[in-house]
Amino acid sequence: MAKIQHIEARYFSLPLSEVLTDAMHGQHSEFELITATVHLDNGTEGTGYTYTGGRGGRAILALIENDLAPFLIGKDAADVEELYDAMQLYVHYVARGGIASFAISALDIALWDLRGKIRNEPLWTMAGGTANRCRAYRGGIDLNFPLPKLLDSIRGHLDNGFDAIKIKVGRPELGEDVERLAAVRDLIGPKVAFMADANYALSVEQAIAACAAFKPFDLLWFEEPILPDDYTGYGRIAEATGMPLAMGENLHTIHEFELAVAYSKLSFLQPDASNCGGITGWLRVADLARKAGLPVCSHGMQELHVGLVSAQPNAGWLEVHSFPIDTYTTRPLIVENHLAVASDLPGTGVVFDWQKLQAAHDLAA
Amino acid sequence: MAKIQHIEARYFSLPLSEVLTDAMHGQHSEFELITATVHLDNGTEGTGYTYTGGRGGRAILALIENDLAPFLIGKDAADVEELYDAMQLYVHYVARGGIASFAISALDIALWDLRGKIRNEPLWTMAGGTANRCRAYRGGIDLNFPLPKLLDSIRGHLDNGFDAIKIKVGRPELGEDVERLAAVRDLIGPKVAFMADANYALSVEQAIAACAAFKPFDLLWFEEPILPDDYTGYGRIAEATGMPLAMGENLHTIHEFELAVAYSKLSFLQPDASNCGGITGWLRVADLARKAGLPVCSHGMQELHVGLVSAQPNAGWLEVHSFPIDTYTTRPLIVENHLAVASDLPGTGVVFDWQKLQAAHDLAA
Ligand SMILES: [Mg+2]
Ligand SMILES: [Mg+2]
Repeated sequence: MAKIQHIEARYFSLPLSEVLTDAMHGQHSEFELITATVHLDNGTEGTGYTYTGGRGGRAILALIENDLAPFLIGKDAADVEELYDAMQLYVHYVARGGIASFAISALDIALWDLRGKIRNEPLWTMAGGTANRCRAYRGGIDLNFPLPKLLDSIRGHLDNGFDAIKIKVGRPELGEDVERLAAVRDLIGPKVAFMADANYALSVEQAIAACAAFKPFDLLWFEEPILPDDYTGYGRIAEATGMPLAMGENLHTIHEFELAVAYSKLSFLQPDASNCGGITGWLRVADLARKAGLPVCSHGMQELHVGLVSAQPNAGWLEVHSFPIDTYTTRPLIVENHLAVASDLPGTGVVFDWQKLQAAHDLAA
Repeated sequence: MAKIQHIEARYFSLPLSEVLTDAMHGQHSEFELITATVHLDNGTEGTGYTYTGGRGGRAILALIENDLAPFLIGKDAADVEELYDAMQLYVHYVARGGIASFAISALDIALWDLRGKIRNEPLWTMAGGTANRCRAYRGGIDLNFPLPKLLDSIRGHLDNGFDAIKIKVGRPELGEDVERLAAVRDLIGPKVAFMADANYALSVEQAIAACAAFKPFDLLWFEEPILPDDYTGYGRIAEATGMPLAMGENLHTIHEFELAVAYSKLSFLQPDASNCGGITGWLRVADLARKAGLPVCSHGMQELHVGLVSAQPNAGWLEVHSFPIDTYTTRPLIVENHLAVASDLPGTGVVFDWQKLQAAHDLAA
C-alpha cells in the first residue's frame, strides 16, 4: 500500500490567441487551468487537472487545498473509486455538482495517473481498451467571427486533418445562423460531419423553429439548444423535430446524466472528465450511455479524453476544443487519417510543460 | 442610483459547544460562516452571509473575492433580481448549484439588506407581509446522543418554548430509530409536532420499511429519507406509504426544486436561503411551492428565515437549527407563545456582532 503524502495544487490563467465568443458565456480572452499533483510516500507522483472558461478557478483551488487534499492525506492511493465516492460524500453539503465536481475531477485524474504508472498501463487500456484511436471533430468558439473569417477557420480545420466540424449558433436572428450553416455546408461538401452548438441560448419554441430551419444542412447533432436543466424540454424538441440532440458539458453529477438519459431523448452524451468527476465520473457516464444505447462523446481537454473515448465500445466523437490545453503538454493531440490517437504512456499520458504554463500565466498577468 | 463601490468578504470558523452527528455528514465540531458586506458609493452598506457544516467555506470566499465581487463593482445595487440572474449567468459554467449557489446567496442577501435600509422596510414586509411571526420547531443534530441525553435535550427544547421537535434518524438498525422515536413521542405527548430527519441515509426500500415502522408516532413529516437527487424515489416512497415527506436543504437551484415538485410528491418544501440563491432564490422557491399548494419551510439560519417564512401566505415551519448563528447577532431568535417573531429593523434584521465572531474564530483556530 502506498499512502498519499502530500498534494500540490497549482493555478494558471492562460491567454487565448484571440477573444472567443459563444451565445451565453460572453467573451473568453483566457481560460483557467488548475492542476493537482498527488505525491505518494514511495516517491511516485500523479497529476490531474481541470479547467474553466476564466471564472471560478481560484475557488476550485481553495476547495482542493483547504478541504479535499487534507481529506486525502494518509489514504491508500490504490482505492481510486472508493476515494472518489468518499470525496463526493465529504463535501456533499456544498457539492452535488458545481465547483466541487471540478475539484474532485482534478484529484481523481491524478489518482488515475498514479494507477497507470503503478500498473505500467496507458489510459486507453485501463479505461476499456476497445481501441487506441477515435473519431474527432474540431469545435470552434466562433459565434462572432464574420462569415469570411468563419469560413477561413473551417478551411484551416480541414487542412489540419479534420473531417468533422462544429460551429456555434445562437446569433440574434435565426436567419443569420441559417446563412452561416449554409455557407459552411457549402464549403465542406456533403461528406464532412457537421454539428451546431447553441450553448443553451434558445427557448424550447425557438429551438423547435431552429431545428426545422437547420434540416437542410444534415447536422450530425444540434448541441445544447436550451438550458441543460430543462431535461424534458430536450425531449419535447427531439419528439417535435426528429433532430439528433447532444448535451453533457454542463452536467456535473451522475444523477444529472441519469435525468438526461431518462427524459431528454438525446442522441449523444458529452461528459467532460474535468467537471463530471474525473475519469471515475466519466467512465460511469460512459457506462450509463452504453446501457442506454447511446454513443459517448466528450467536451474539452482532448489530450485526456482521446484515451477515454477511444477505449469505449460505444465510442462517439472526441471534441477538439478551442482551449489548447494539449499545447502545454509534451504531446499535443495527434490526428492520423482523421482519427485522434491516444497516448501509450503509462498513466493518463498527459505530461505538462510546467515552464511553458508558468511563462504563459506570467505573461497574461 | 447608488453604485456598488466595494465588497468586503469575511470568513469565520465557529466552534459548536459539543460534537454533533447526523447519518451522512459525519461529526460536526465547528461550522463556517462567510459574510459579504456590500458598500455603496453613497456610504450605505448591507451585509449578507452563508454557512457550511465545516467544509468548503474557503472556496465560497474565493468565488466571492475573485469572481463575483469584481463582477458587481460599479453596478446599481437597486437591481437586485437582475443582479441575481446576472451572477448566475456569469459563473454558470462552474455553477448550476454547488459552491456558486452559496456565494451568490451571501451577496444576494447583502443586496436585500441594502434594499430594506434604503426603503426603510423590514424583511417580513418586503418578502410578502402576510405576518411577522410563524410556527417554529427545534431541530437537533442528535443521532449519536444516548437515549437519556436525547430525552434531556428534548425537555430543554420544550422548556425553551418550542411545541415542535425534530430528531435525527438513520441509526444502524431500524429498531434503534423506532425505540428513540417511541421514547420521544412518549415524552412529548400527542400534541407536540414531531418530525424525523434521515439526512438521505436510506435506500428507497429501507425508507419504505422505515415509514411503516414510524407510522405509530404520527410524524408531521419524514425528512430526506433518501438521496436528494433521486426525485422519483421520493415519489415512490410517498405513494407506497402515505408518509408526508419533506426536503430542500440540499437543493441549490430553482430547477432542482422544480424537479422535486414535479416528481417527488413532497408535503413540505425546505429551501435554505444560504444555499439556494439568497432571498431572491428563496422567494422563487416559495412562489413555486405556493403554486403547487405546498407549505414552504426553511433549513438553518433561523434569524433570517423567520422574516421569510412569516411573510408567506403558504408559510410552513421555521427550523431552529443547531448551528447558533443567531447568537452571534444583536438579536438572537425570539420565540413567543411558540411562534418565532421576525425583526422590524430595516433590512434583513440580521446585525452581526463582529467582535464576538472574531473572538470565537480566533479561539477555535
Ligand atoms: Mg458545447
Ligand atoms: Mg435536514
